[in-house]
Amino acid sequence: MSLLVIGTLALDKVETPYAARDEALGGSATFFAYAAANFHQVGLVGVIGTDFPASEMARLEAAGVNTGGVESVEGKTFRWGGRYEADWNTRHTLFTDLGVFEHWDPKVPSGLADSRFVFLANAAPAVQAKALDQCTSPEFVMVDTMNLWIEIAKDDLLALLKRVDGIVLNDEEARMLTGENNLIRAAKKVLELGPKYVVLKKGEHGAFLVSEEVHFSLPAYPVENVVDPTGAGDSFAGGFMGYLASARNTDAATLKRAMLYGTVTASFCVEGFSVEELAARHRGQVEARFNELSMITTF
Amino acid sequence: MSLLVIGTLALDKVETPYAARDEALGGSATFFAYAAANFHQVGLVGVIGTDFPASEMARLEAAGVNTGGVESVEGKTFRWGGRYEADWNTRHTLFTDLGVFEHWDPKVPSGLADSRFVFLANAAPAVQAKALDQCTSPEFVMVDTMNLWIEIAKDDLLALLKRVDGIVLNDEEARMLTGENNLIRAAKKVLELGPKYVVLKKGEHGAFLVSEEVHFSLPAYPVENVVDPTGAGDSFAGGFMGYLASARNTDAATLKRAMLYGTVTASFCVEGFSVEELAARHRGQVEARFNELSMITTF
Repeated sequence: MSLLVIGTLALDKVETPYAARDEALGGSATFFAYAAANFHQVGLVGVIGTDFPASEMARLEAAGVNTGGVESVEGKTFRWGGRYEADWNTRHTLFTDLGVFEHWDPKVPSGLADSRFVFLANAAPAVQAKALDQCTSPEFVMVDTMNLWIEIAKDDLLALLKRVDGIVLNDEEARMLTGENNLIRAAKKVLELGPKYVVLKKGEHGAFLVSEEVHFSLPAYPVENVVDPTGAGDSFAGGFMGYLASARNTDAATLKRAMLYGTVTASFCVEGFSVEELAARHRGQVEARFNELSMITTF
Repeated sequence: MSLLVIGTLALDKVETPYAARDEALGGSATFFAYAAANFHQVGLVGVIGTDFPASEMARLEAAGVNTGGVESVEGKTFRWGGRYEADWNTRHTLFTDLGVFEHWDPKVPSGLADSRFVFLANAAPAVQAKALDQCTSPEFVMVDTMNLWIEIAKDDLLALLKRVDGIVLNDEEARMLTGENNLIRAAKKVLELGPKYVVLKKGEHGAFLVSEEVHFSLPAYPVENVVDPTGAGDSFAGGFMGYLASARNTDAATLKRAMLYGTVTASFCVEGFSVEELAARHRGQVEARFNELSMITTF
């Protein structure tokens, strides 16, 4: 296995001004895995409770996800509930029930431990570090985080950042982590914390990639009908890392193309609830939208 | 003359979290004219009071702006005061003293009336229409507006939109004009109101151009040190129209390049108070930043 994601599998309750879903498949690692599976085989390390639907596990396997690292534990699966306002940018967390995720001690099985591309999806930095410890041959490690960990586990996070190649952050997280309001300056400050690459996601406003050598900025794909933004960031990361793993390369040109694949993959995600649209898309549709985005951004 | 702008000349009071200026040169037509002058000779139609500094008029002329259409009227020049918050996106208007602009009846002198490229900078739609009436050979007319006119003069604005080729709007104005939250759908709705081209500006998040045939999206130039965002939109329009006028062309490829020139020109504007940085830049610096933006957005 050359691509691995470590993170949550969840059951989500999502409310939007137009519709709602309950007990829908969610979780950072789940979105990442479906997104990456269009590009490359992907291994998934996570934890579920005994209430997790067997059908969802079968569906992941059918999509080409190696679920050998998904541990089933007596108890309840992680559940998250959120409500979006009509502008999609305002999200209210209704509840977070950690369930079996609360005391999870990640175990990377031997068949997945030699992965070269590793994505540490959002989790406590100490948990992410424990998972990374078990990876024997990581060549390109990216990490995601959230405002909670920047607040309550910043030292752990800073220690972890010295061990990774890249980080994906949204605008709010970048400002919080660096105390810098200007996003360009914030991204450059993050580079000083360890990662060689910073991918800064701005939702409907696109994303940019910064390293010592590269600065690449990309608008979002122009989605006209947003249904549910949940999982967009993880889908971006999945498309991004999935393409890198398939290209077996992280040079500047490949990273830029990966930004387009990430953007396109996220655009599918937000067009449906849960993984509905994301899981339904095949590589040909990804390529068609890649070409469209390329047209829109090339002069 | 082939490029003409009709709009305000003003004296601004600007406060930011870091510094302030009073009685600084401002006004939509002024920013546009300095921005466009790097690309093409530009004629300016507007009104000033007897308190307007002669030195500023001389400086405009020296920059290549034809001020033959600037009428001097007994009374006070238009004055505007604003204060920005640290995020730059929140702007509080401190005061608006219309002065001689309040009862201004625009007169386009014969030497400027045959301009082929015309920009109707922000003013009451009825005033914009009166100015346009006097243009004898307009080939490409763009209009700017603001939330105030959408609120209190929507019928006049809608009538004007049927007479123009393009409109520049910011995100808030586009949503207000169309009642559509999604910016892509909002832009497409504006196309139905008459203009063939909609340029939707999103400040630090870039801009996009939509027509029946073209969809082009561009991130902003990554400015690290914003000093004063006043006039950024008019500077964008000036760079955009100035380039079009110099190219004597409005095909898709030229419009896309014009988007880059508008973006680059606006980036200079926000790096200084008033027109300080904008007026100090020459075409070579514009080209250098054009190439840089091109690098940042090309994969």
